[in-house]
Amino acid sequence: MVQECGTERIAGCQFNLSVMSDDFADVILGALDQVVTSKVWKDTDDVSTCVRGRIEHVFDVVKAVYLQAAKTGKHVEMSGTFSIGCPGDSSGDTHMDVSSERMNEAASTDIQQKAGCKFALYPMNTTNYMDVIYEQIDLSKEAGVTVSPSHYATRLDGEAADIFNAMESSFTKVQEAISHTTMTFTISANSPSNR
Amino acid sequence: MVQECGTERIAGCQFNLSVMSDDFADVILGALDQVVTSKVWKDTDDVSTCVRGRIEHVFDVVKAVYLQAAKTGKHVEMSGTFSIGCPGDSSGDTHMDVSSERMNEAASTDIQQKAGCKFALYPMNTTNYMDVIYEQIDLSKEAGVTVSPSHYATRLDGEAADIFNAMESSFTKVQEAISHTTMTFTISANSPSNR
Repeated sequence: MVQECGTERIAGCQFNLSVMSDDFADVILGALDQVVTSKVWKDTDDVSTCVRGRIEHVFDVVKAVYLQAAKTGKHVEMSGTFSIGCPGDSSGDTHMDVSSERMNEAASTDIQQKAGCKFALYPMNTTNYMDVIYEQIDLSKEAGVTVSPSHYATRLDGEAADIFNAMESSFTKVQEAISHTTMTFTISANSPSNR
Repeated sequence: MVQECGTERIAGCQFNLSVMSDDFADVILGALDQVVTSKVWKDTDDVSTCVRGRIEHVFDVVKAVYLQAAKTGKHVEMSGTFSIGCPGDSSGDTHMDVSSERMNEAASTDIQQKAGCKFALYPMNTTNYMDVIYEQIDLSKEAGVTVSPSHYATRLDGEAADIFNAMESSFTKVQEAISHTTMTFTISANSPSNR
């Protein structure tokens, strides 16, 4: 499929990165310093960071930020919400007129880090949302992740990069069928707690 | 309104508490130790904690956990999703047959802690979800919180306890109109980042 630049829909993610150590600020700033964010709009405040742009670049950046922080071996968590097509969202703050080449994929692929994640998809503005989820997603076909049920969420375990790839695949498929789709997630690595 | 025990709907919350310090485990365990959880079902793993029960007790416990951790003065974040009426959710793991008296309200009220929060409501299985949100919620009437817009979320600032009260009020009102309602939030205190 040929896609023209600037004609796609604006996706975004509000996320917060948590590093459980006294030097959390250095770890977070160090991670951000290694991530190329030129293809997304980005804003950080005291609660969370928001990135907006094409789906692939939003996922590329969020995944890279998590991997760069988690590779320190510290207990690192990220929670966030991916969103597309929200009718209340403004059309501003976008970087849509860019190529599809991912700026951080090569660096992210080099990072091995096991993680656990719980995520949930919310197709909005529809009365057959459960059918859409079942029809669009087949997590058993996602490479490298093991899938288990959890209250209010689906749990994925495996390499953090594979987990993000599975979430991107799920989100991308559902938003092709449902205009306003959101997806929440919490991913955690190096936790001292038992599974 | 007289409510009989055991006849209400099961609410729940999946949340993760993040403490940005080397002694995060002690802070989290210390906070949990000061929260009475006898009126909710609770399960913690390496990714998140899930509590389930009556709406008021789910909020009472989640708020208390956050306040007990944040009162340490450390940079403490919590992200989570409140949910009720999910058709895919099991009916188990409940503690519905309890009185409405909140076990942690007195202790929580004593804790003063400023915070910032972004939250979003997702009324599911309906095509007029934006109308429902506008009709049910009037955040300007919530005591102690200032309200501002954010991408994909609404921002609340004020005392952490007031923020949780405003979220509980919003969630409770929307779920009276919409059977399956979810609400995501991220709350942060003592962050070194600028607003």
